[in-house]
Amino acid sequence: MESIFQAIRRFSYWKAVKCEFLLTMFYVLIGCASTIPTDIHNKQSVNELKVAFAFGITCLTLMQCFLPICGPAQMNPAVTIAMLCTRRVHVITSFIHILAQCVGGLAGAGILYGVTPARKHGHLGVTFVHNDIGRGQAFGIEFITTFIMTFAYYSGHDNPGIFGGFQAAPVGLSIIMGHTLGWQFTGASMNPARSLGPAIVCNEWSDHWVYWIGPVLGAILGGITYEYTTGGGPEIKHLRR
Amino acid sequence: MESIFQAIRRFSYWKAVKCEFLLTMFYVLIGCASTIPTDIHNKQSVNELKVAFAFGITCLTLMQCFLPICGPAQMNPAVTIAMLCTRRVHVITSFIHILAQCVGGLAGAGILYGVTPARKHGHLGVTFVHNDIGRGQAFGIEFITTFIMTFAYYSGHDNPGIFGGFQAAPVGLSIIMGHTLGWQFTGASMNPARSLGPAIVCNEWSDHWVYWIGPVLGAILGGITYEYTTGGGPEIKHLRR
Amino acid sequence: MESIFQAIRRFSYWKAVKCEFLLTMFYVLIGCASTIPTDIHNKQSVNELKVAFAFGITCLTLMQCFLPICGPAQMNPAVTIAMLCTRRVHVITSFIHILAQCVGGLAGAGILYGVTPARKHGHLGVTFVHNDIGRGQAFGIEFITTFIMTFAYYSGHDNPGIFGGFQAAPVGLSIIMGHTLGWQFTGASMNPARSLGPAIVCNEWSDHWVYWIGPVLGAILGGITYEYTTGGGPEIKHLRR
Amino acid sequence: MESIFQAIRRFSYWKAVKCEFLLTMFYVLIGCASTIPTDIHNKQSVNELKVAFAFGITCLTLMQCFLPICGPAQMNPAVTIAMLCTRRVHVITSFIHILAQCVGGLAGAGILYGVTPARKHGHLGVTFVHNDIGRGQAFGIEFITTFIMTFAYYSGHDNPGIFGGFQAAPVGLSIIMGHTLGWQFTGASMNPARSLGPAIVCNEWSDHWVYWIGPVLGAILGGITYEYTTGGGPEIKHLRR
Repeated sequence: MESIFQAIRRFSYWKAVKCEFLLTMFYVLIGCASTIPTDIHNKQSVNELKVAFAFGITCLTLMQCFLPICGPAQMNPAVTIAMLCTRRVHVITSFIHILAQCVGGLAGAGILYGVTPARKHGHLGVTFVHNDIGRGQAFGIEFITTFIMTFAYYSGHDNPGIFGGFQAAPVGLSIIMGHTLGWQFTGASMNPARSLGPAIVCNEWSDHWVYWIGPVLGAILGGITYEYTTGGGPEIKHLRR
Repeated sequence: MESIFQAIRRFSYWKAVKCEFLLTMFYVLIGCASTIPTDIHNKQSVNELKVAFAFGITCLTLMQCFLPICGPAQMNPAVTIAMLCTRRVHVITSFIHILAQCVGGLAGAGILYGVTPARKHGHLGVTFVHNDIGRGQAFGIEFITTFIMTFAYYSGHDNPGIFGGFQAAPVGLSIIMGHTLGWQFTGASMNPARSLGPAIVCNEWSDHWVYWIGPVLGAILGGITYEYTTGGGPEIKHLRR
Repeated sequence: MESIFQAIRRFSYWKAVKCEFLLTMFYVLIGCASTIPTDIHNKQSVNELKVAFAFGITCLTLMQCFLPICGPAQMNPAVTIAMLCTRRVHVITSFIHILAQCVGGLAGAGILYGVTPARKHGHLGVTFVHNDIGRGQAFGIEFITTFIMTFAYYSGHDNPGIFGGFQAAPVGLSIIMGHTLGWQFTGASMNPARSLGPAIVCNEWSDHWVYWIGPVLGAILGGITYEYTTGGGPEIKHLRR
Repeated sequence: MESIFQAIRRFSYWKAVKCEFLLTMFYVLIGCASTIPTDIHNKQSVNELKVAFAFGITCLTLMQCFLPICGPAQMNPAVTIAMLCTRRVHVITSFIHILAQCVGGLAGAGILYGVTPARKHGHLGVTFVHNDIGRGQAFGIEFITTFIMTFAYYSGHDNPGIFGGFQAAPVGLSIIMGHTLGWQFTGASMNPARSLGPAIVCNEWSDHWVYWIGPVLGAILGGITYEYTTGGGPEIKHLRR
């Protein structure tokens, strides 16, 4: 247990934490902004494809830009927990990262609240389960989409060359995929921090548990599936302390 | 004939079969989910471009992610048959792959059935020939789009470097192209497994033969055209047993 | 003059001609298909972005796929003439290529005519100058967009590495750019062969000269600008005989 | 101070200035053209995603095409000022570049004025602060989006390999991101030259200061944040004289 405390005392460790904070902040800020309808009386005025690209391209671009600065960021408590379960991060590290991500998500939602007009404060990207779909179905959608995203995350970062040196591409693209599947049913969160930020700012908590349990279990299963499929099994790989 | 039975007994062979199953499942699940209209009384509420990107990006991302795990997947009975005709896979292999793809397509459509509300169960991505277009025309559209896609598949996997190390890009992009051409006429299946899954789940079989004969013939001609154009001719290349 | 006749007798030369034919055929087929409105009484039902991506992605994907087979294709009489003016192709070669492109464009439009219902035969992607815009303005739009596209074509093929080994990317992306600029005014042809095909099939020739003079002059100036900007000047570079 | 005057006398220096002019001209021309509504009585007829892609893809494609000709262009007075503040360009150089960019933006808007019908001259891409949003909020949106874009600019050009050799990708993608956030509130300028051109041509100056102060301060902070985050601090790096 000593080594982790030594690691935490290093400067580069806190740089990674800062990156998690900044990336999740920008991710929530830009993604949630894209979900604000132009006409608040017509929810159809949100272009579904725009939302998908906003979240996907933001993740893909920023994660890649921060790669040479602080290594592969997770930007997602579910992914961090999956990495903890497959023993890629230490439990203390993962706890601090999740904290940074949640605070980052809150900061992003807060900034969005600040720069949007009061009329639109009821539409700041809160994810909710749509009326005609059950709780279990919503759980299933979050579970599956996060499963795929986490698998893509592991695949991209373990094989940096396969996407032409563009490691963050699979994560970003699978976020786009997740939105084409889940947007009209659950809002396609795939990320507890992304759901937590707007929920706190707008104080809307209906079915919030779905956006924690679904992504976290999906991510854990995705990570474990990846480790077993690639034949590595649950051995210790220290991607980042 | 002994060598193929030996190959089948290897672990890596069944890993490839598992990959075909998983990839086709996710492809059908995400792609078909994107075709569900937000408003079931207004079929125009489906964003055509979203469907094209959903199928294209899913194919491109997942095929690339699974590349280091189990080699180039086919995800498509038509492509597998084309590879059989150009002697790139063995007849027994191809049979098992097609089976895995069809079961995968069924599983994807089944999961989609499970996570969508009952009101929308009539719109789970079944491909059908639109009213104002003849059977022969529908066949032609499926034939041409699959021809181009198969050509792109061969080209991408034979020349891994041309898309910047992104081998699955040409297949994914040509699926997007196929949707811009065929979506409003036939639903742009280009993949018998993708049509079979929703057809079984929704039990809608009108003109289903179009989605088998069209893609398969198109893919065979596409594969043969590629082999002759590149000057290779029908020689034996073992991309995957 | 002997060497060109010897070159023409080579097999690889006619392969390049065949590629020009096939590529232009698929380009016109897929691109023009995307311009067919779902509802023929509502021209706004065409998704502008879909058209841009259909033309752009088709060019980018197919040009790249055919690159290892028959070298960089032009797919465009305007580009071929520009390459003739900057002495990159021989006059006889360019003449045969233009012929192949025009026949390819006609074939693509003909196939599209064959696979579409009669009700939609009035909307097969014919480019026309919209009502509220003058002939000179239409010329200007075609001139500028083709200028940029040709510059990108030269830049991509002279510096294969700059787009990560994806030489056809700049051409394809600049076709998307051209459509966001010109689609609502002239249909953003940027390619005489793409305009010729549908014009013959639908027998609509109003303002057809705009789609020859505009792109050809734009491409010539774009090519010359590129040669002088890169400091090469009009020296002989034999990209393809 | 002598070295800068010597640098200015070199030919390559003025080539860079010419590139800044051309790139900003094309950027403003294509981007602003995409904002022209098809139906001028219905502002919703502008496809938001099309605008985002028009600006983003234009920046990404052209900046990459000009890279081997004249080095990394800035195309943006805000970025130039940020590079001045982080001591990457000389003060005289930056002044001349900003001038070239502003004249380029004006030229682009002027060409657009020339090729569009008179009916649409009121809609040539002028950025304005929308009614239901305060001045400070508009400033905040321009500040944040330009902050992210500048960070991505520095990151892409300092680490050419991270986007698979596609240095201009992060800038272009972050322009798309900025539009998904800011388009409905401020028009998502992120570039004083892009706002200046249409403002002069249409002679509309309401809240024009927002599009100078916001991007410039955001870019400066983005540049400084990048320098400190990467550990370089404000040392002299001569990217371009």
